[in-house]
Amino acid sequence: MARWEPDAAGRLRQAALDLYAERGYEETTVAEIAARAGLTERTYFRHFADKREVLFHGSTELQEALAAAVEEAPADESPLDAVAFGLRRIGTFFDERRAFSLRRHAVIRSSPELQERELMKRDALVAALVEVLERRGVAPATAALAAESGISVFHLAYARWIEDPDERSYAEHVDETLASLRALTVSPAPTG
Amino acid sequence: MARWEPDAAGRLRQAALDLYAERGYEETTVAEIAARAGLTERTYFRHFADKREVLFHGSTELQEALAAAVEEAPADESPLDAVAFGLRRIGTFFDERRAFSLRRHAVIRSSPELQERELMKRDALVAALVEVLERRGVAPATAALAAESGISVFHLAYARWIEDPDERSYAEHVDETLASLRALTVSPAPTG
Repeated sequence: MARWEPDAAGRLRQAALDLYAERGYEETTVAEIAARAGLTERTYFRHFADKREVLFHGSTELQEALAAAVEEAPADESPLDAVAFGLRRIGTFFDERRAFSLRRHAVIRSSPELQERELMKRDALVAALVEVLERRGVAPATAALAAESGISVFHLAYARWIEDPDERSYAEHVDETLASLRALTVSPAPTG
Repeated sequence: MARWEPDAAGRLRQAALDLYAERGYEETTVAEIAARAGLTERTYFRHFADKREVLFHGSTELQEALAAAVEEAPADESPLDAVAFGLRRIGTFFDERRAFSLRRHAVIRSSPELQERELMKRDALVAALVEVLERRGVAPATAALAAESGISVFHLAYARWIEDPDERSYAEHVDETLASLRALTVSPAPTG
């Protein structure tokens, strides 16, 4: 009989992150994660499909929040600005989890398998953005390009944010990265 | 004793593509691929580390060719134009393999595992571009953005190229996608 486990998913995520950081991702088993969290393997698999998914617990929530925020961007925003509007909105999601994000980032960098899963999540984010942009009336080819570019901004702003010694907000890094993208794509100019 | 197997890698790739298309990726074993190619499993694993890698036979070659082409772009090209220069150059790599690319694309779309591997190859391509752009004297943050944007162009141009009923060249699709990116990123403008 399953008993009620308060915040089982959160405890499993914390235990997994600790163990992956201490022993390495490859060397850790689901049984060990469950034991560390004071739960059973069965409880683990009620929450997560595999050993990787535990580190991507927030990704569905994030994807839905981003899609909803882009949906709410003013109707006259360009496709890319609508995506930027959404990215700024979800900034607090990251800002509130800085310490966790740093540890998680280091663990993911350590394992090709985890990197693969992260890239799949990123790809799903692109697809979700394409869908919401098309609902905003953006033509498919433009929506694809704006979603790809928007997720590049998302990703690079995240990398800058995580390395920022001044701990400025994620939204600020989005603005800076978007400005850099605009500078990069202006008509051909020499750089040397 | 290993005997000489003419174009073993190419035969294995063809056999794998045929079997993945006929029976599905999940349902096919390495033993079956080797048998179809008239080779042994041992020969398979001399060429490819796993069941996925056989479909990414050309990716190292492609990555090296792209890096070399970007390296050769005129010194006064902007970072993004240097990448575009490289992408146009490698266009023949795709144009010469249209039928193969179409079948391969369909097989990859059919399997999340193959999509994961493709995303990893794409990520490796971004890293290779960052490296070559930095060698050209581009600052790291700009190199990262130009590489990400360049690979978005690479990827979207590929999607357009593969679906083009007129079978125009890959280089033409690169030019069009790059022009769309420039239009997308000009200063904010209403779209409706």
